[in-house]
Formats: sequence, C-alpha cells, structure tokens
Amino acid sequence: MGPSQPSDKGVPDGRRQRGDRARAKILDCSTRIASTEGLEGLTIGRVATEAGVGKGNIQVLFGDKEALQMATLEHAVALYKAAVIEPALRQASPLARLVALVDGWYAFVEKRTLPGGCFLNATSSEYRARPGRIHDRVRGYRNGTRARFRELIEEAKEAGELGRDVDASALSFDLVAHQAAANVAALMGDREEFAFAKRASRDRILGAATAAPRSNTDATRG
Amino acid sequence: MGPSQPSDKGVPDGRRQRGDRARAKILDCSTRIASTEGLEGLTIGRVATEAGVGKGNIQVLFGDKEALQMATLEHAVALYKAAVIEPALRQASPLARLVALVDGWYAFVEKRTLPGGCFLNATSSEYRARPGRIHDRVRGYRNGTRARFRELIEEAKEAGELGRDVDASALSFDLVAHQAAANVAALMGDREEFAFAKRASRDRILGAATAAPRSNTDATRG
Repeated sequence: MGPSQPSDKGVPDGRRQRGDRARAKILDCSTRIASTEGLEGLTIGRVATEAGVGKGNIQVLFGDKEALQMATLEHAVALYKAAVIEPALRQASPLARLVALVDGWYAFVEKRTLPGGCFLNATSSEYRARPGRIHDRVRGYRNGTRARFRELIEEAKEAGELGRDVDASALSFDLVAHQAAANVAALMGDREEFAFAKRASRDRILGAATAAPRSNTDATRG
Repeated sequence: MGPSQPSDKGVPDGRRQRGDRARAKILDCSTRIASTEGLEGLTIGRVATEAGVGKGNIQVLFGDKEALQMATLEHAVALYKAAVIEPALRQASPLARLVALVDGWYAFVEKRTLPGGCFLNATSSEYRARPGRIHDRVRGYRNGTRARFRELIEEAKEAGELGRDVDASALSFDLVAHQAAANVAALMGDREEFAFAKRASRDRILGAATAAPRSNTDATRG
C-alpha cells in the first residue's frame, strides 16, 4: 500500500477518508506510547514503526514532533471526555454529576482505558518543569478540571444537595489531590492506596451532602 | 587534566579522592538534569558533556545507564534525607517531628532545593507504568515515606499529642496526597494550590492534635 499515491479516481473525499483513518491509527498508537512513557517518549520514527505507516505520512498529517505531541494530548483528552465527562454531565442533578465525574475517573484508571492511567495527571508531572506550549496547554486543562469541580459543587449547594457552608475550593482541591495520589498508586501496584483515595473522595462528597445523591430524572423533563 | 592517567605517586588514597570528587560532580549534574527531565532523560553522553568529564570516566565510576540512574535516585534521596528528614527527626516530640517533616517537604519544594521539586514524586509518576529495578526501588522509598508518617502519628497518639481516635492510615494518606498535588502545582505555577495543600496538611494535623505541638526539649534529657 502506498498511502502517498493518488487514488485511481482522484476523489478528494476518498483521500480525506484515508487521511482520517491514518490519523486515527497514528493517534491511537501515539496515545498508547505516551500514556506509559510520556509525551517526550514520542518520536516520529517510533510512532511510524509501531503504527506501520511511513514517517513522511506522519509529517504530512501532523507536522513536527511537537505538533504530534499536541495532537496526542488533545486525542487523550477527547477520549476521556467521551468516556467520563460527557456521561457524567448527563446525570440529572449537580450532585449526581459530581459523583459520576469522580467515580468515572477512578473507573477509567482502574480499567486501564489508557495503559498509563490518567493522561493529564501524567503530563502535569512530566511538564511541570518544562516551560512551553505543551506545559501551557496542560495547565489550561488542569484549570478546566478544577473549575468543573468547583462549578458542580456550587450548583449542588444552590440546589440544596450540599450544605451551604461547604468550601468549594477546599473540596475540589481534595478531589484533585486524591486523584494525583491514586493515579500513581494504581500503576505502582498500591491497590490499597488506590482504594483509599476513591473511598476518601466519596466520603468527602457524601459527608458534605445534605442527603444521598438523587438520580432525579424528573428534573430533566420540560 | 587526564583523569584516567595514574597519578605521579600512584597513591591509592589520591586516586580515591579524585574518584570521589568526580563522582560527586557527576551526581550533582545528573540529579539536576533528572529532577526536571526525568531519570529517562539521563544519558551517559549528556551527563558527560554537562559535567565536563569523559564518557569513559562515567562508565568506570558507575557502569551502564541504569546504574547511573539508580545512583542518581540514591543521591537525590540522600540529599532530601540530609535537608529534611534528619533535622525533622531531631525534634523532641513525635508531633513536632511530624510537623517538621511536613513543613520541611513544602520548604524543600518551595525553595527549589532541586529544580524539579520532589524527586520521589516525580519518579513515582515517571516509573508508575515502567516495571523494573528503578520502579521497585521507587516503590520501596514510597512505602518508607508512608511508614514514617504512620509511625510518627502512632507515636504522637501514644504520647497523647494526637487524639486516640485519629486514623493513622487516613491521615498519612492525606499528607501524601497533598504533597502529590502540591509538587505538580508548585512547578506549574499554581501558587494558590500549593499554598492550599500546605495549609490543608497543617490543618489536618493540628485538627487531630490535643494541643499545639510542643518543642519539649526536657524530654531529651537523660
């Protein structure tokens, strides 16, 4: 197969489809590699070999190494969004959304949806002391994660599901800190610590709740 | 200077001193590189260039790349031990030792004693999904850290400084989770989150204390 040859009919749609398929194949491979070895472990040569595509193909589809790293980060984030964030945000009440978001994260790591666990926690550590575009993008996603937790906590307080005196910053900090510890623990084989983190987050949320989280489907009806 | 040439007098002590000095110089350099870029970022060639020594010298003094990585890990741990653990353990009471250990960690990261912050947190993340000797050693140090926290908490309970009902595993988990979050936050430039973590750990300890920590020098007298 010569991916750089024009197709027999020269149909742009056909070329685009082939390009999309090649892109998806490359990103699946680069995300898997970067998940355990870090985004710095990605080289165009290595991804080409493991994905079974030409180096030139990767350069045409992505550009340079940094562009491939950025695309890999976006791909991992999109994967997490589809697997965890979107289903959680479809829950009916703010507290149910918060609990689903937390439980979903632990399930994502436990099931090894990505072999290296949470991509954002891993790249946060990898790029903490390496200034540049990737660092800035990772920081943006980190802020997004915290903001999402804080908003759901505030909404749950307004809905009367969490106590009025709950400190949204303190609670969201604890949830994030438990995840940081749990992500490393899960892959280090510290099952006890992983279970501890999961339970600690649940306990923190339910301890702040005025009642058990509802799955109030009525609230979604017009 | 030709480090591999025998000295004029051929005195073994002179050779050993030169070897020790070269070793210290190489380890200072490798620890600095690995602190921000990870132990995987170490190559014998790079360390040789940055430390201004011959590649052959590094091979003679350390062996292969993995041996240099292991020696670098030990060096970073020894540095932390001298800067934080030993002074903290010289405090008179278990609670004072615990508080000094926690405060010392935050000061170590905040002052950038190592440019990449806490070496053990960084390598825990780097090797979480890379089985092998380095992973196992890192895991051993992680367990040591947790055991030290738990022991001090138990001792403080026995000394009546912490409440009898304090859960040593839960408290030590929180202290470790706050550090995991704070280490990344400090270097990501999230000053607020770093300060939050530090305060949260202090609050957790002092909230469990029966009184403010004593600096009971009398207890050390015969």
